[in-house]
This record gives sequence, structure tokens and C-alpha cells, in this order.
Amino acid sequence: MATNQEEVTLIGVVGSPFVCRVQIALKLKGIEYKFVEEDLANKSDLLLKSNPVHKKVPVFVHNDKPISESLVILEYIEETWNQNPILPSSPYQKAVARFWSKVIDDKIVAPFFRAVYAVNDDEKVREKNIEESSQALEFLESELKDKFFGGEEIGFVDIAAVVIAFWVPLVQDISGLQLFTAQKFPKLYNWSKEFLNHPIVKELVPPREPLFVYFKAKYDSLVSSSK
Amino acid sequence: MATNQEEVTLIGVVGSPFVCRVQIALKLKGIEYKFVEEDLANKSDLLLKSNPVHKKVPVFVHNDKPISESLVILEYIEETWNQNPILPSSPYQKAVARFWSKVIDDKIVAPFFRAVYAVNDDEKVREKNIEESSQALEFLESELKDKFFGGEEIGFVDIAAVVIAFWVPLVQDISGLQLFTAQKFPKLYNWSKEFLNHPIVKELVPPREPLFVYFKAKYDSLVSSSK
Repeated sequence: MATNQEEVTLIGVVGSPFVCRVQIALKLKGIEYKFVEEDLANKSDLLLKSNPVHKKVPVFVHNDKPISESLVILEYIEETWNQNPILPSSPYQKAVARFWSKVIDDKIVAPFFRAVYAVNDDEKVREKNIEESSQALEFLESELKDKFFGGEEIGFVDIAAVVIAFWVPLVQDISGLQLFTAQKFPKLYNWSKEFLNHPIVKELVPPREPLFVYFKAKYDSLVSSSK
Repeated sequence: MATNQEEVTLIGVVGSPFVCRVQIALKLKGIEYKFVEEDLANKSDLLLKSNPVHKKVPVFVHNDKPISESLVILEYIEETWNQNPILPSSPYQKAVARFWSKVIDDKIVAPFFRAVYAVNDDEKVREKNIEESSQALEFLESELKDKFFGGEEIGFVDIAAVVIAFWVPLVQDISGLQLFTAQKFPKLYNWSKEFLNHPIVKELVPPREPLFVYFKAKYDSLVSSSK
């Protein structure tokens, strides 16, 4: 637990899946922190100074030391605060969790968003990305053996996959690209319902409606600019 | 040190920077292992079974348990064998090492190779990737404060950056794309010389000439097919 001597700050925006990952981990461990809302249209000096390479949120600042990249932040939180572990203790099981989290980012989320935003590209690029994301989802589906990826409790991979549980369905409803469905991925779909129903996750996932409006406006403007 | 009871196997190919990372870490820690040469043109059942998601090398197999993704493997090796640590002990310094290793892969190496192989794409795509890689190299240059990223000894980030020390200059000489030079990045350039001169690295980096011929043939065939 953070003591009074410690300064724990999260620079983020409401509505970012990567910021949400950090919020879930902090809440699971009972760490109190200050949330500094960033204006991505007019980035703060604090953000630019803390994460000059990517200039992106989340940035986690602990006692004036900034850390960027959501999965790197999760590892830091796990190593700094031992309570309610989100990673298994065995080096092999840790490697497995790191491997799947990387699959989620590189092979599921990135190609999914490339496919959605590929309205300017040719159909081949779009299909290639859909295929890549879909295949990786199949592997992730077969990796799910318990209630959660972490077993009976949510862990590192579940937290990483919040983007699949909440953001992917949202963007699907906007774009019409139906990739992650109950029919195609029944186990993952059930997992997503269980996960979003977890009291901590439920509290931290942003309200759907304003986010829907926000993403829809962005998507519509992209589509209309490509016509 | 691996005992007789342990089976330590690395599935790889000579000439892969990602396989070389794992070899350097194993050598630094004095771990004996069996190297299984993979035929990437005709992938083995062992590879396909061990890494069905990516079907790529390296795969590290320890007591029948396979681990993929070079940075994930490095973390596993570090956690399994404590001698000659490649990561600092402080959670913050660990996070810093993980952050820069990810920058190397995502912001330097990936866009560099996209720029090199973008002979079919338009000039804009090529320039965007060169710019991305070049900017990240500048940040990495300013991060280098000692002889090595690991301090006086080579560590996680140095090992991750073997691809910048050896493969990037090789591919530059083939493609003519001069991105990483002594003029532009004097500190990084000196680091690369020191690093390649380290006895363990020197022994494990593949012979340049056959690799040059191999990559050049691949590059020439790409260029001619795009004409």
C-alpha cells in the first residue's frame, strides 16, 4: 500500500484501454494514486517530459520517476507492491503470461485497429489484418482454460486483454467489422462477460455511451475524408 | 549452471539477431544448451508445435517447456539462472531496461526494416519509417551514459541492441540506406564497436560475409521483383 511518503501518479485519459490496464492493477493491489487527466489535443509539459519517446499515455510516476508503456508499468507495479499478485511466481508461468500479453498487443489489437482504420487502404491490407487478428484470437481462445487467464482470479493476461473485452466490441459496433463474436469465440466471449462483471473491472471500465459517441465521430470523419 | 538433469535447447538459425540475443544471454550465464538448427524454408514439427502462434525462431525449450519471443526468453533466463545478472535489481531500473528494449524492437528495428523492404511502397511510407527509426535512435543515443547500457558490463538493453550493432549496419551496406552512422550517432556508434568487441559477443555474432551474401540475394530479388 502506498504510504503518505510516496507519490503515486497516473497520467492518463478516460477512455484509453492502456490507461485502464494500469488502473485495474492499482485497484487490485489497493494502491492509492493521483489521476492526472491529460489533454491529448494539447499535450502537457508533464507528459512530454515524462514520455518524450512516445508522447503517449499512460505514464506512471512513482516518487518522481516516470515509467511508460502499459505492460512495463504492470510489471513495475507487480514488483513494487507484492499484495494480490497479478503474475504467477514460477518463471515459466511468468513467461507464458508475458508471451500472451504481447500476442494481445501485437497480433490481436494492432491488426484489429489497422483493419478498422484501413478505410483508405486497399481491401487486401484490410483482409490481411483481419486474418492476422482472427488467427491470434483463435490461439488465445484455446489458451483459456479456467474462469480467467489468471485462474480463479484475474491476472496479467486478463488485465492486458481488457481491450478485447471492452474496446474491441465497442469499435466493432461502430465500424461494422464483426471479428470477435460469441459464435466464433465462445470461450473468450464468456470470459469477457465474466471479466467485465468483476467488481473492480466494472468500476474502472469507462461508461460506454460517451465513448461510443467519441469513437463514432472519429470513425465517421475518417470514412468521410476517404471518399 | 544447467545440471545433467536439465534439458536446455535453443531452436534457432545462424544469422538471426533474435536468436543471437538468447545465445549471448546463455553464454554470459554459462548455461550449456543444445542448439537445434531450424530450416525456415521447411519448418520442423518441433518448431510448429513449440511456437504455433508465430512459427518463428528463437524458441527456448527448458525441460520440455517451450518459450518464444526473444525478450520473453531473456527474462526467463534471468529469472531461472541468477549468476551474472543482465537486469538491474531495482524495479525502476528493470522497467527502464524493458522500456528501451521495446523501443529498440518497435521504434528502431521494425521501422528500419520496413523502410529497407518498402521498395514496393511509395516514397512517403519509406520516409515515415526512416524518420521514426531515426528519431528513436536519437533518444537511444541520449540514454547511453556509460560504456554499456548495463553500465560497465553488458546487460538486457545491450543484448537487445545487438541487432543495431551488427544487423543494421550490414543491411545498410546492402540497401544503401544509411541511417545509423558514426556522424549521426557517435555515442551509439562507439558503443556498437565496444559491444561487438566484447569476447562473448564477438564469439556469437555470425560471420559477416556469408550473411552479407544471403541478405543481398534476398534484397536484390525483392528489388528486381518490384521493377
